[in-house]
Amino acid sequence: MKTLVIVAHPHLANSTTEAFLKAAAANENNVIWHELKAPFDPSQEQELLKSATRIVFQFPMYWYSAPAILKQWLDEVLDSRITSNQILKGRQLGIVTTLAHSASAFQPGASQQYTIAEILRPYEALAHSLGMKFLPPFPIYQFAQQDEAERQLLFIRYQQYLTVNNFLHFSNRTQWFVERLNDKINEEHDPLQQAKLEQLSMLLTEQQEELDDLHASIGWLRAKEDD
Amino acid sequence: MKTLVIVAHPHLANSTTEAFLKAAAANENNVIWHELKAPFDPSQEQELLKSATRIVFQFPMYWYSAPAILKQWLDEVLDSRITSNQILKGRQLGIVTTLAHSASAFQPGASQQYTIAEILRPYEALAHSLGMKFLPPFPIYQFAQQDEAERQLLFIRYQQYLTVNNFLHFSNRTQWFVERLNDKINEEHDPLQQAKLEQLSMLLTEQQEELDDLHASIGWLRAKEDD
Repeated sequence: MKTLVIVAHPHLANSTTEAFLKAAAANENNVIWHELKAPFDPSQEQELLKSATRIVFQFPMYWYSAPAILKQWLDEVLDSRITSNQILKGRQLGIVTTLAHSASAFQPGASQQYTIAEILRPYEALAHSLGMKFLPPFPIYQFAQQDEAERQLLFIRYQQYLTVNNFLHFSNRTQWFVERLNDKINEEHDPLQQAKLEQLSMLLTEQQEELDDLHASIGWLRAKEDD
Repeated sequence: MKTLVIVAHPHLANSTTEAFLKAAAANENNVIWHELKAPFDPSQEQELLKSATRIVFQFPMYWYSAPAILKQWLDEVLDSRITSNQILKGRQLGIVTTLAHSASAFQPGASQQYTIAEILRPYEALAHSLGMKFLPPFPIYQFAQQDEAERQLLFIRYQQYLTVNNFLHFSNRTQWFVERLNDKINEEHDPLQQAKLEQLSMLLTEQQEELDDLHASIGWLRAKEDD
């Protein structure tokens, strides 16, 4: 899988959030980091799109939508060369958006009144229209207020959002950690450290197998109940 | 009431729809027609906003949103001078949007899958955030395919959308016609024509009074049923 991250931010150099996400993405193979700068060469942008199976729009939320530059890019790049051949059909569209309000503000009765799902509906409609699979969005609330532990978790989750096939499934996230550990094991020269990491990797795999078995059993019990 | 029509169209000179709507708006006093052209002077744009009680965003729908220039305008003009003083609180926000698909395409299961209300939610959220009253949107479907009768109706309905206080109420629309007729009567020099127009104006008023009476009676009967 190849992921294209389309970053739309009018003041990119001043954004600590984007710098943080860029560092997380830099660790990943198969991730192309693409910062939008007008003017665009539509043909070149279309080649980039064609190279990716997962396309992620990444932006700070301004007035319940992406900054104007993303819309300009959409209006200019998604022309008939993309739409008439259904080039993007079957590919995935993800959204990473940073928000100045807390998660709880985005609900009826709270300050923002509308849910993230409602606010992002036009992007869902875009995905539908292009025959793309719309991924569950990845909202980042109040990055400036996050402590170190929250940021570490965000760092990992964001990497998973870019690279894990079915990132909402727990077993896929475990698989992701096991792969990372195996990379570390191969790089490690100290045999004792290597052994420790191998133990950890095996433990994770065994736990996941046990979890999978339990899920299978529960599924079987539920199927019986439905008889 | 003063209405500000903010027209966002990247190829305005080629748009027959916008030319049609411009002609309709030109007949109206108290309507300011404002075509967006970058770069913007935020202070000047803010003065325009302050002068209007009804603000209308008018644009062709591109990829389930306005063309980029409207977003650029929002991002640059709605700064803290607007938000911190709640300058727009209590004013109205309307949307006039032209669509390449038919009305029936905008529903679950049809080609566009999402309703106009869903697609325009970010503008509704914007109005909520600014303390503005969001008006029922005014979508114009497939203008190019409309025949002369449909266009005449559109011409009048659009004028009403810009100028009638509560344009969904039938009695307000009648009132609008009566005012127009009275203007015509004052301009008319032929006494016979004048008498005819006066008759028509009286007839409309009488019919509306009768309608209002009937509505009042129905309301009274319903209230009794609820006892």
